Amino acid sequence: STHRLLPLFLGLFQGALLLFFALFVTYDKPSAQAEDANLVANQLYGIFPFFQDIQVMLVVGLGLLLTFLPRYGFSALTHNFLLLNFSTQWALVLQGLLHHFHHGQVHLDLHNLLTAEFAAVTVLISVGAVLGRTSPCQLLVVATCEVPVYLASEWAIITRLGVLDVGGTITIHVFSCYFGLGVSKALFGSAQQPVHPKETPTPRSDLLSLVGTLILWVFWPSFVAILCQSGDAQHRAFLNTLLAMSASAVTTVVASSLLESDGKLSPGHLQNGSLAGGVAIGAVADMAVPPVAALALGSLSAMACVLGFRFLTPLLARKLALQDQCGIHNLHGLPGILGAAASAMAILVASEDTSGSHFSQVSPTRRNASEASWGQWGDHGAGQQALCQAAGLAVAIGASLPAGLLAGAALRLPCLVRPPERLCFDDSLYFKIQDEAENPGPGDTAEEGALALKE
Amino acid sequence: STHRLLPLFLGLFQGALLLFFALFVTYDKPSAQAEDANLVANQLYGIFPFFQDIQVMLVVGLGLLLTFLPRYGFSALTHNFLLLNFSTQWALVLQGLLHHFHHGQVHLDLHNLLTAEFAAVTVLISVGAVLGRTSPCQLLVVATCEVPVYLASEWAIITRLGVLDVGGTITIHVFSCYFGLGVSKALFGSAQQPVHPKETPTPRSDLLSLVGTLILWVFWPSFVAILCQSGDAQHRAFLNTLLAMSASAVTTVVASSLLESDGKLSPGHLQNGSLAGGVAIGAVADMAVPPVAALALGSLSAMACVLGFRFLTPLLARKLALQDQCGIHNLHGLPGILGAAASAMAILVASEDTSGSHFSQVSPTRRNASEASWGQWGDHGAGQQALCQAAGLAVAIGASLPAGLLAGAALRLPCLVRPPERLCFDDSLYFKIQDEAENPGPGDTAEEGALALKE
Amino acid sequence: STHRLLPLFLGLFQGALLLFFALFVTYDKPSAQAEDANLVANQLYGIFPFFQDIQVMLVVGLGLLLTFLPRYGFSALTHNFLLLNFSTQWALVLQGLLHHFHHGQVHLDLHNLLTAEFAAVTVLISVGAVLGRTSPCQLLVVATCEVPVYLASEWAIITRLGVLDVGGTITIHVFSCYFGLGVSKALFGSAQQPVHPKETPTPRSDLLSLVGTLILWVFWPSFVAILCQSGDAQHRAFLNTLLAMSASAVTTVVASSLLESDGKLSPGHLQNGSLAGGVAIGAVADMAVPPVAALALGSLSAMACVLGFRFLTPLLARKLALQDQCGIHNLHGLPGILGAAASAMAILVASEDTSGSHFSQVSPTRRNASEASWGQWGDHGAGQQALCQAAGLAVAIGASLPAGLLAGAALRLPCLVRPPERLCFDDSLYFKIQDEAENPGPGDTAEEGALALKE
Repeated sequence: STHRLLPLFLGLFQGALLLFFALFVTYDKPSAQAEDANLVANQLYGIFPFFQDIQVMLVVGLGLLLTFLPRYGFSALTHNFLLLNFSTQWALVLQGLLHHFHHGQVHLDLHNLLTAEFAAVTVLISVGAVLGRTSPCQLLVVATCEVPVYLASEWAIITRLGVLDVGGTITIHVFSCYFGLGVSKALFGSAQQPVHPKETPTPRSDLLSLVGTLILWVFWPSFVAILCQSGDAQHRAFLNTLLAMSASAVTTVVASSLLESDGKLSPGHLQNGSLAGGVAIGAVADMAVPPVAALALGSLSAMACVLGFRFLTPLLARKLALQDQCGIHNLHGLPGILGAAASAMAILVASEDTSGSHFSQVSPTRRNASEASWGQWGDHGAGQQALCQAAGLAVAIGASLPAGLLAGAALRLPCLVRPPERLCFDDSLYFKIQDEAENPGPGDTAEEGALALKE
Repeated sequence: STHRLLPLFLGLFQGALLLFFALFVTYDKPSAQAEDANLVANQLYGIFPFFQDIQVMLVVGLGLLLTFLPRYGFSALTHNFLLLNFSTQWALVLQGLLHHFHHGQVHLDLHNLLTAEFAAVTVLISVGAVLGRTSPCQLLVVATCEVPVYLASEWAIITRLGVLDVGGTITIHVFSCYFGLGVSKALFGSAQQPVHPKETPTPRSDLLSLVGTLILWVFWPSFVAILCQSGDAQHRAFLNTLLAMSASAVTTVVASSLLESDGKLSPGHLQNGSLAGGVAIGAVADMAVPPVAALALGSLSAMACVLGFRFLTPLLARKLALQDQCGIHNLHGLPGILGAAASAMAILVASEDTSGSHFSQVSPTRRNASEASWGQWGDHGAGQQALCQAAGLAVAIGASLPAGLLAGAALRLPCLVRPPERLCFDDSLYFKIQDEAENPGPGDTAEEGALALKE
Repeated sequence: STHRLLPLFLGLFQGALLLFFALFVTYDKPSAQAEDANLVANQLYGIFPFFQDIQVMLVVGLGLLLTFLPRYGFSALTHNFLLLNFSTQWALVLQGLLHHFHHGQVHLDLHNLLTAEFAAVTVLISVGAVLGRTSPCQLLVVATCEVPVYLASEWAIITRLGVLDVGGTITIHVFSCYFGLGVSKALFGSAQQPVHPKETPTPRSDLLSLVGTLILWVFWPSFVAILCQSGDAQHRAFLNTLLAMSASAVTTVVASSLLESDGKLSPGHLQNGSLAGGVAIGAVADMAVPPVAALALGSLSAMACVLGFRFLTPLLARKLALQDQCGIHNLHGLPGILGAAASAMAILVASEDTSGSHFSQVSPTRRNASEASWGQWGDHGAGQQALCQAAGLAVAIGASLPAGLLAGAALRLPCLVRPPERLCFDDSLYFKIQDEAENPGPGDTAEEGALALKE
């Protein structure tokens, strides 16, 4: 029967994971000398708090953001949590097999875990397009397909092309957006989904969702800057991200208020637009751009996000029957493309500065690709590097969209039952959860209080 | 029409901000040498986690604390978030114009952002007095007025007078409290506001609000200690704050339970009293006071806060028709005054110690004012420094109250429409939000919205 | 009258605390030299963020986890907060009296506060067994009894026996579990408690509770690793905890789904099972175990936890009339015992490795016991150390169960009134809180759930 598929799949995977770890994975040898140990400790104190910030973002912040569906909050939170863990483990296995296998042993450290978690982020974003209309099994299939494609695409973009993208604007946000849209298109086909009665947020679910946004907003600088070179580049990345997100927050209010006829703000705009600056800033965060560029990029991306929600999403739904439940195209697609364009521009503008000293301030991003990117830029000049950024964008879209379509087609396999329409967006399909039919005896507690005191 | 005022005002401000940043603001030159870069990295690791703690406090903690109004949670959270960003940006502009303009270029770093955010904190506290009865435009006017007055008052208190106030007890809490009360008094005049049916918290809104309190409680030590000299002074500031807040939490329960006839605790007391110790400890946190002083101060301030809620707030409402929606006078005013008095006492007591060695342990507070404060105390002795603390308190109240009254008068300008009484405390006036099915008066909110716009 | 007992007790305690601090407690002398000050600053930056993570876990995470009772959320959050503060203060007093008294003055630092907070953790866990059926006064009596027994037991296990238990698996989790079960048994006697109508979680309370779980899940590595030697051991402790918790999260889904006939997941399983790995990994986290061991331990403990909820808790309730409201035996007892067994096995396996070099990688845990534990293991070899671990487990259970039974008997004193049965699980008994008057649609989702299974 179909409801045994989930534990079967996950159980088999856990077994395979244990086997793989038992055979191939160890920790690094501990450092022999006291000085090295001190160094290790300092590096750990440098990276670990940011790592934990990112976990708060993904587990609590993103989880809460997805609870805007009033009767699907528990599912959204749990599926997000499950997907994060499954995808991270799956990425660890694939990384181990692909990248490190020729060394015999895989040495696990916090940096491996972090890059695996970045792979998981793409899954969490992509499934936003099909939130509420998919079963957990289908979500796991999406994760299974997306992680290897992401790893290959990230390798092509960062290591081969030498694209500068410290905050994952291109490699994570653009990639996952078009992967998710591909999945949605292939899964739902050309039939436009009707509006579901359980789809409308309530004030309470909107409130919790906004809390999720705020948590993401606060910790976003850690996400962008964690892979920067420590020192000036990281400091700049923090400041640029803070400025971009601050501009996004204010511009979202302006844009949302202008677009609605009665000047009221839309909760959905606030929940997403406030974060658009963080998506867009990723590719330029550690470059030597002036502060105004970060502010402008934050403003523009928030505008693009709100305009997308207002005009593009309905248009795509009408013309292409494209379902995008969370509006990932508005939060991750449009700002991501803006950010990629901004990175190309920043590189070109920096190269026109007289001294050229600005150049040397653009620090290599993504430590593991630093030589590559430096080498290329050093050799080929700014024009070529700007082209690289565009090529990276093309690769991200070109890899993710077809792969997403394939993954979406896989979701239509007969063994993967989709939830029936009237049980979409409903926790009770997957969880032993009481309906909110608590019948509060009419105001009996005041009475009971009095009674309690007598006793 | 009036509902275009908000995007117009914010849009113009964003434009001006971009222009100002484009013309005048750059980042610091990156450090030339590797050692300096290491130093930068270490300083960053020292300050950034605390900075982020403070952002969690302001965005998530304070935001949630304000959601105690059951139908106004989304507005409270959003307005708090918008005000934080707007006020920080506005403070950055003013700081740039006022303090740094004579250097030609403004060099932005994390420290600037932090002091701008402290200016924003005063706004977030002040508007608590008028929460729920003001439009977003009015709140932005409050912010516009309050930030420059705060910057001037902070300069006078810390830089000119040399007041020791590392945690902002006087400069932030006392100042913002009386500014907010001034706004409230001038806005509402002498007519006592009737109790509004939507004003009463529900168990659910009280719960979320308490979560906000707990988040503030946990991260408060970072707020107090972030500007301390690193090392012993900062360690002491952490410990003193932890002790004061722990005492506050327990004493609040005692006081609240004693004051109610049936021994039941009031949610409002818990939500506020638990934080009173953090407000009061700011001015003495890094001084060489014994641990018992921190405990006693925490206990006393919690008592003052609970007593204030029980007796003073109703009294002020009755006698002065003073509206204080969140009870900022109880959480920020009374404990702030207690803290200022404690700082004067601590200085006097320390000076009576035989060796005088205690003196040298009182570290200078607020890095940017360190020479001034040290110089004065060194020259004039403890008596004079204690007088300075009192003078600082007087300046804070003397500057904030009239400025607040003026700002409140500005809120009565005809162009700034106040929400109509029956739509106060209601999200649906500003947000496209479905009303909760709990008594959904049949589609009356659309009607009310239209009505609100006419008024 | 009885409702004056709480402020009386707490007020007297606060007075005694102030007296004790005034007479005996000071801060450390500040370091004389600049180099020392730098060292202090670095140590502070090393430990303080972890300390704050733990506070978030206990105050916000654990607090929210306990809000699964729909009408008892405010009480759960407040009582948890009050108990944390009271128990920490009480532990500080006892630590001062017992351990440091012979030095004349007690020097308070962050490390003292941390160990006092660990003592408080045991109370917070234990009272989970009797959540909702006890008054605040009774909870304070539990705290008063448990803290000294914990301190004695921790001294015996760590300092005397030299047990390795860096994350508190044995000293905190096992101890507090059996103490809590003892309290519950003695308090409720042999009468099985009927299911209470207010005991059933709602979707909303389950959601908030899950958020609490996720917060605990994210910050758990800080709890396990804060007392590790910095450097390699701490790095390993982080990684092991991350792996164990990731495996727990996935395995919980597998186990919960397999155990229910219709494949639906139980919220309670998710809320608890996801954390089981963190409980179990504590005793081996910093040992030189391979990564696969952490994964396997996480999986096993999650399985044990879910099986416990499904079979053991109902069995204990039926056979022994044992009430365990939060299922602490499943989350803290079973995984704790598994973790203790794993630590003994890890020591034995490590000793069989040829070189013996693995040995030297097992770092001493719990700084204050480092010499003892090293000495013993160095002298007596691995077999003896493994026996020590078993002995530590025996001491933890042997000390906590009888002490808990005694404490539970004390709760039946006539002066400590238990809440009457029909006011159990109800906020309105202790708080001035309005009842919710929500009229939910009449139970239509149960119908839909049944329909979903047919489709």
